[in-house]
Amino acid sequence: MTRTNRRLSTALALAAMLGAPLAAMADPVAYPEGYRHWHHAKSMVIHDGHPLADPFAGIHHIYVNDPALEGLQTGRYADGSVFVFDLLQAEHGDEVLTEGERKLVGVMVKGAETYQETGGWGFEGFAGDSRDQRLVSDGGQACFACHQSQADSDYVFTRWRP
Amino acid sequence: MTRTNRRLSTALALAAMLGAPLAAMADPVAYPEGYRHWHHAKSMVIHDGHPLADPFAGIHHIYVNDPALEGLQTGRYADGSVFVFDLLQAEHGDEVLTEGERKLVGVMVKGAETYQETGGWGFEGFAGDSRDQRLVSDGGQACFACHQSQADSDYVFTRWRP
Repeated sequence: MTRTNRRLSTALALAAMLGAPLAAMADPVAYPEGYRHWHHAKSMVIHDGHPLADPFAGIHHIYVNDPALEGLQTGRYADGSVFVFDLLQAEHGDEVLTEGERKLVGVMVKGAETYQETGGWGFEGFAGDSRDQRLVSDGGQACFACHQSQADSDYVFTRWRP
Repeated sequence: MTRTNRRLSTALALAAMLGAPLAAMADPVAYPEGYRHWHHAKSMVIHDGHPLADPFAGIHHIYVNDPALEGLQTGRYADGSVFVFDLLQAEHGDEVLTEGERKLVGVMVKGAETYQETGGWGFEGFAGDSRDQRLVSDGGQACFACHQSQADSDYVFTRWRP
C-alpha cells in the first residue's frame, strides 16, 4: 500500500466512522465572506403557502461575485463563480413589507470537477448569521434536484437584468 | 456691470424665461451611472393603499456608492455620497412576489453647499429606464419634506445591516 493509498484509506475509514460523505469532507463549500458587497442580481418574496415556503418563505436577495456576473452575461461559468441566496424574514406592516432577521445564507459555487455529481455546482446553506452552522447534509442532492429544471442555463435560475 | 455679473444676469433672465429654478440649471443631479454594481443596502415593498403608493408602490432596492456606505457606517456623509432608490413593479404570482419593469430611479446626492436649501442633499428622479427624463420639478422640496423626519441621521432613512 502506497503512502497516498494509505492516507485515502484512512480518510475513507474516518468518513465511514463519522457518517459523513467523503466529498463533503474533502471540499466543503466555503462561507461567502464579503458577499454583501458583491453584485445584487435580483430579489423575490416567497409567501407562506408556496411549495418552497419551508424553508424559503421570506424575502431573498441574490448576490453574485465577479465570475458569476460574467457567467450570467455570457452563459459560461468559470470555476469559482458563486451565487448567494440571502434569505431574510419578511415583516408585514401597514401596506409595506420590510426585511427582518436573516433566516439563512444559501451558496452555490461552480466547481466542474469537484462537484460533478451535482451538475458541477456545490451547494451549502448557513443558518441565520452563522458562518459554520451548515444546513446541507445530502451533498447538495436536494438543491440540485430543483435546479435541474434550469439545465439550459447551467442550472442557474437567476437572469441578469440591467 | 462686470462680465461675471452680466453672465449671471443673463442666466437669471434665461431661467425666468424658461420657468426653471436656477439651482436646477446650475447643478442638475447626475444620473447614477453603474449603480447596479454599487452596494445593495436594503429593499422594501410598498403596496397599493400605502400613503406613498403614488408613485412608490412596488419593490424598491437601495444602492449606495462607496462614500455613502462610509456615511452609513460613520454617520457623516462626504460630498458626493449617493443613494439610489431603484423602484420596480411588484408582480404578484402564486404566493410569490417578483420584480417587474422599472418604474423610476430616485437619486439623493450629498452636496452640503450646493443643495443647502434641501438639507445639503440634491434629489432627482428618472422615469423608467430613462437617463434624461427627469421627474423632480420643485428643486427637491417635496422629497426633502419627507426626509426631514430623519434629521438625526442627516435626512437618511436607510440603516446599514450586515
